Amino acid sequence: MKALELHDDFGLDHLRHVERPEREPGDGEVRLAMRAASLNYRDLLMVTGRYDPRQPLPLVPCSDGVGVVEAIGPGVEGLEIGDRVATLFCQGWLAGEPTRAGIRQTLGGPIDGVLSERRTLPAHGVVPVPTGLSDVEASTLPCAALTAWSALVSQGRVAAGETVLVQGTGGVSIFALQIAQAAGARVILTSSQQWKLDRLAELEPWRTIHYRDDRRWGTTAREMTGGRGVDHVLEVGGGQTMAQSLRAVRVGGHIALIGVLSGVEATLELTPILMRNVRVQGTFVGSRERFLAMCRAFEQHDIRPWVDRVFPFDEAREAFAYLAARHHIGKVCLEF
Amino acid sequence: MKALELHDDFGLDHLRHVERPEREPGDGEVRLAMRAASLNYRDLLMVTGRYDPRQPLPLVPCSDGVGVVEAIGPGVEGLEIGDRVATLFCQGWLAGEPTRAGIRQTLGGPIDGVLSERRTLPAHGVVPVPTGLSDVEASTLPCAALTAWSALVSQGRVAAGETVLVQGTGGVSIFALQIAQAAGARVILTSSQQWKLDRLAELEPWRTIHYRDDRRWGTTAREMTGGRGVDHVLEVGGGQTMAQSLRAVRVGGHIALIGVLSGVEATLELTPILMRNVRVQGTFVGSRERFLAMCRAFEQHDIRPWVDRVFPFDEAREAFAYLAARHHIGKVCLEF
Amino acid sequence: MKALELHDDFGLDHLRHVERPEREPGDGEVRLAMRAASLNYRDLLMVTGRYDPRQPLPLVPCSDGVGVVEAIGPGVEGLEIGDRVATLFCQGWLAGEPTRAGIRQTLGGPIDGVLSERRTLPAHGVVPVPTGLSDVEASTLPCAALTAWSALVSQGRVAAGETVLVQGTGGVSIFALQIAQAAGARVILTSSQQWKLDRLAELEPWRTIHYRDDRRWGTTAREMTGGRGVDHVLEVGGGQTMAQSLRAVRVGGHIALIGVLSGVEATLELTPILMRNVRVQGTFVGSRERFLAMCRAFEQHDIRPWVDRVFPFDEAREAFAYLAARHHIGKVCLEF
Amino acid sequence: MKALELHDDFGLDHLRHVERPEREPGDGEVRLAMRAASLNYRDLLMVTGRYDPRQPLPLVPCSDGVGVVEAIGPGVEGLEIGDRVATLFCQGWLAGEPTRAGIRQTLGGPIDGVLSERRTLPAHGVVPVPTGLSDVEASTLPCAALTAWSALVSQGRVAAGETVLVQGTGGVSIFALQIAQAAGARVILTSSQQWKLDRLAELEPWRTIHYRDDRRWGTTAREMTGGRGVDHVLEVGGGQTMAQSLRAVRVGGHIALIGVLSGVEATLELTPILMRNVRVQGTFVGSRERFLAMCRAFEQHDIRPWVDRVFPFDEAREAFAYLAARHHIGKVCLEF
Repeated sequence: MKALELHDDFGLDHLRHVERPEREPGDGEVRLAMRAASLNYRDLLMVTGRYDPRQPLPLVPCSDGVGVVEAIGPGVEGLEIGDRVATLFCQGWLAGEPTRAGIRQTLGGPIDGVLSERRTLPAHGVVPVPTGLSDVEASTLPCAALTAWSALVSQGRVAAGETVLVQGTGGVSIFALQIAQAAGARVILTSSQQWKLDRLAELEPWRTIHYRDDRRWGTTAREMTGGRGVDHVLEVGGGQTMAQSLRAVRVGGHIALIGVLSGVEATLELTPILMRNVRVQGTFVGSRERFLAMCRAFEQHDIRPWVDRVFPFDEAREAFAYLAARHHIGKVCLEF
Repeated sequence: MKALELHDDFGLDHLRHVERPEREPGDGEVRLAMRAASLNYRDLLMVTGRYDPRQPLPLVPCSDGVGVVEAIGPGVEGLEIGDRVATLFCQGWLAGEPTRAGIRQTLGGPIDGVLSERRTLPAHGVVPVPTGLSDVEASTLPCAALTAWSALVSQGRVAAGETVLVQGTGGVSIFALQIAQAAGARVILTSSQQWKLDRLAELEPWRTIHYRDDRRWGTTAREMTGGRGVDHVLEVGGGQTMAQSLRAVRVGGHIALIGVLSGVEATLELTPILMRNVRVQGTFVGSRERFLAMCRAFEQHDIRPWVDRVFPFDEAREAFAYLAARHHIGKVCLEF
Repeated sequence: MKALELHDDFGLDHLRHVERPEREPGDGEVRLAMRAASLNYRDLLMVTGRYDPRQPLPLVPCSDGVGVVEAIGPGVEGLEIGDRVATLFCQGWLAGEPTRAGIRQTLGGPIDGVLSERRTLPAHGVVPVPTGLSDVEASTLPCAALTAWSALVSQGRVAAGETVLVQGTGGVSIFALQIAQAAGARVILTSSQQWKLDRLAELEPWRTIHYRDDRRWGTTAREMTGGRGVDHVLEVGGGQTMAQSLRAVRVGGHIALIGVLSGVEATLELTPILMRNVRVQGTFVGSRERFLAMCRAFEQHDIRPWVDRVFPFDEAREAFAYLAARHHIGKVCLEF
Repeated sequence: MKALELHDDFGLDHLRHVERPEREPGDGEVRLAMRAASLNYRDLLMVTGRYDPRQPLPLVPCSDGVGVVEAIGPGVEGLEIGDRVATLFCQGWLAGEPTRAGIRQTLGGPIDGVLSERRTLPAHGVVPVPTGLSDVEASTLPCAALTAWSALVSQGRVAAGETVLVQGTGGVSIFALQIAQAAGARVILTSSQQWKLDRLAELEPWRTIHYRDDRRWGTTAREMTGGRGVDHVLEVGGGQTMAQSLRAVRVGGHIALIGVLSGVEATLELTPILMRNVRVQGTFVGSRERFLAMCRAFEQHDIRPWVDRVFPFDEAREAFAYLAARHHIGKVCLEF
């Protein structure tokens, strides 16, 4: 079967199509015929060697994919040939609280990812996806959607009537907007580019802020809520944005730290965290249990992932380059 | 000022219009010019002596009203003349967990209620209401809406993608339907009368069950969810309905016990509660803190209370009789 | 290998020692050389056909055992030959919230239990036990201790300074006493027999109530707390005791329903549940994740299970008869 | 009556003893004859103008005191002449979640504090203290003890069997040690000075780390737990210590940020917060509801505050100087 491999070194130039042997599913395993995959910023960091330079090679990159069950090993219950499933990012985190062991076994590094025609995985490492979604759409759920769900629902317990500030227009951010709205909250959406906000107007954020034009956007967001502050911030920027997030959030509020796009280090004023009882909560994707709950919500609300562009599997390298250029909104995907 | 009083004995016949002296607001108090009130089943039980036969008389009945602030005592912050506010049912439960002291000081017995032209109360015992609601609509919030909110949001933490079974078409039940939907859940609505279900079709419950025709409605509800069971039951019946509620609810699910219309005693099978990890949670209205959160949600979602019929203040007795006849859907109200 | 089997019919008389073939551990499995087992009331109900009369036979009874790993199948991580482990009651409930599938796969029925010299189980279905405990002591953890832990810690979130009312002196109850104390709460212990309370004096309950002599023991317990009420009740009686439990518990308090010794049906007054915001929470043992947390607490606090009597494996029938006679305190165990 | 006032400028030199008129308690108020007070680091910052340079003067400093009720205004329930009570730091935060309004009304700035012979406060702004404590001991509860309680119990929900890392030997830290132990957790205590660790040995921390000698103390703490990491960190240092706290804490763990002694800014690596699902939770003292729960725990466990030194009221300035010198362990107090 064909697979895409980071062969002997990191870098987009080292991605190559190779032939790999198929493997029969063992006890408790299923084999998928892959249909689609989606790219995450983490995948780009991994491929370029910035995520974990000690990652052994060769590696099949990308954690997020959708396939159809085509073979089932002994002892598998609850799955049948033909079922369409997505991959679980943390293969060892099935339910409950995160554990060290559970969050280490992640697809797309250290475990081989999904950029191959077939993929054999433990049955508990795949999750049935909502029927209303296309293969490409469903392939965006494992990291981007689940991170937003974990941040706002599982950890944040967002409630009807609350206000959520969502930074940016990447994959996680748009899912956060959609999930917050499904949960009955209203969303303030920020972006550095007006055309992105314009494009997303159809998703009906409650308010938008063009933060290049408004350096004090945290205070602006707070004022939008009548001075009370927002209940949740989806923090994707990290280093450069936390200070404004702290201005935006209400007393007792929640900053979900899910990304560090603007810097892995932040020089933080700690006093407002302390004096205003703020919770800064790191979020690292989520468990199978959360994934299942999320799918019920997606199905019920007919939430459609925002797919920016779909590349054929053969052009995976181009897809990565497109992601790196950061001109997209939402998700960049591959189709097999 | 005019007031309606349960004078010397219980019973609708003993309700009479009397003249009472006005009172200036003291430290931390405000005086309201009452605009509207709504009736609860508890008010009916109180007036007929079934709620607490030891309640001293005379008593001004009814806990739920809306008025306009017309005088402000010393030391009051955050309220101004002309503000429109609703009354807080538990005058002593401002925030946090319920306490014995907090849930005893309730309006409409033992404390005089709202059926008078003017009412002086502590400033913390009134709550500003959403601007989009009429006076009559806003008067339905203090007990019926807040009970539904406490049950599903504060205590139940209902999440997007969940399923809520709501029993009946009374005031609390319709609010529960609206709140569940605002929070992103879908609702199975039951009634003993088809015309009531038909009337409520415009609120778009996900499914309805006519339970007179379907004695095994608990099992039916479970099957509607693909066998998983509903996440929450709003239990208003009590004695006769708990057994079916236990069939409907999922493993680990939640039964919010908010009413005992069909009987104050239930002969319960305890084994399913135990073996299926079910939580039966009593709900007694709620705190000021929850009321404020609820108003934010109502305002954001433009939730409109379902008012069945409005009587003038002079016809309060007829309003109680109408409530007792149980031909209504939603709330029965009074206008001053 | 030798096993004890409920052969062709229910009843203690139908328990017989048989020879069964050993089985090599498959993928992800381990084989244990059993060392000890403990009996639960559920095991007695199962053996006598009262728990689930449709349970297919033959069946090896008893869910709770301790053994030493003597063989390890492919793909097992984190266990080594010689490790001492206990069995997990719900083999399919590893972490997080309970699910229908998770709570069905229970040892001692429908899955064969632990009364055999060797037992092969999935590696995730066994849990390392605290080093300080003897084999017999450790064998009491899977159901009795974990039920008490789930009720008070995982679900009840018992806190320092709280008061817990524990009914009776059976296995779960004594663990509840010990766990509540380890968590910084004080315990009111009830029993129908003074000699049992006397025997348990060394565990230092804060107060005891001899409930045969005090039919209004719920009110007595409330008065012991200065009228406030207890924070948690460990309800093991069910039918006959719930009414008094409702008198004992504080406003907003928690009744953990873990047993139905006095009756599977209760005729409950629902009004106090509702008006006093009480939570009645069914508890069905617990997950592997909770078991691990419990073992950390047992190790740290050096909690020693209260073992009433140990029978040799050959006298399992006598052990069951002894349990049925209800003259014990704490746990009845078997040694291989 | 005599009071200590920060008269016309900030600085210890500007503290002076003045005569102030007494005030009769109004509606809902009580007047206390003050008995003792304790100093917090915040009080020192306030007096020296570093906490809030815009604080209007004159100001009576210090938030934490104990007095005896000597006069009661109209409408007060639940308090009697002679009751011994402590002051509530956030006079407006009675229960539930923190609010902007609730956390602004703090004693010792902006509201006059407790360094006066008599103090008139709202009845809800004082809290009865455990009978077993001396006046001086009880005066340490309002900020230091309640902050530790909020951090570990109310917000952190510390459980039996967990491990808590406590930084330093100041007032909050020692309370955190005592509260964690009362809740059944074990404590790793750090200090920069060996003699302080030696002095506190009688409180039986599980482990101690002399962090001047061990710059990688976070890793050391993690290793003490067998590599799993600690469940909670009581972070009092802020800027300089957060990096090691992040090494110490387990996946999914909790860092309670309660102080910024080593710097109000921290340059944080955000990646470990994110990838290890860490919660950094600001803690700002707590509500009356939490104070009451804490007193129950203190009474039950006979927790005795660690008082370093007591100064007479006349030597308040010396007490502040002593606090500033940082040679103390636990609390520095004043006696009237």
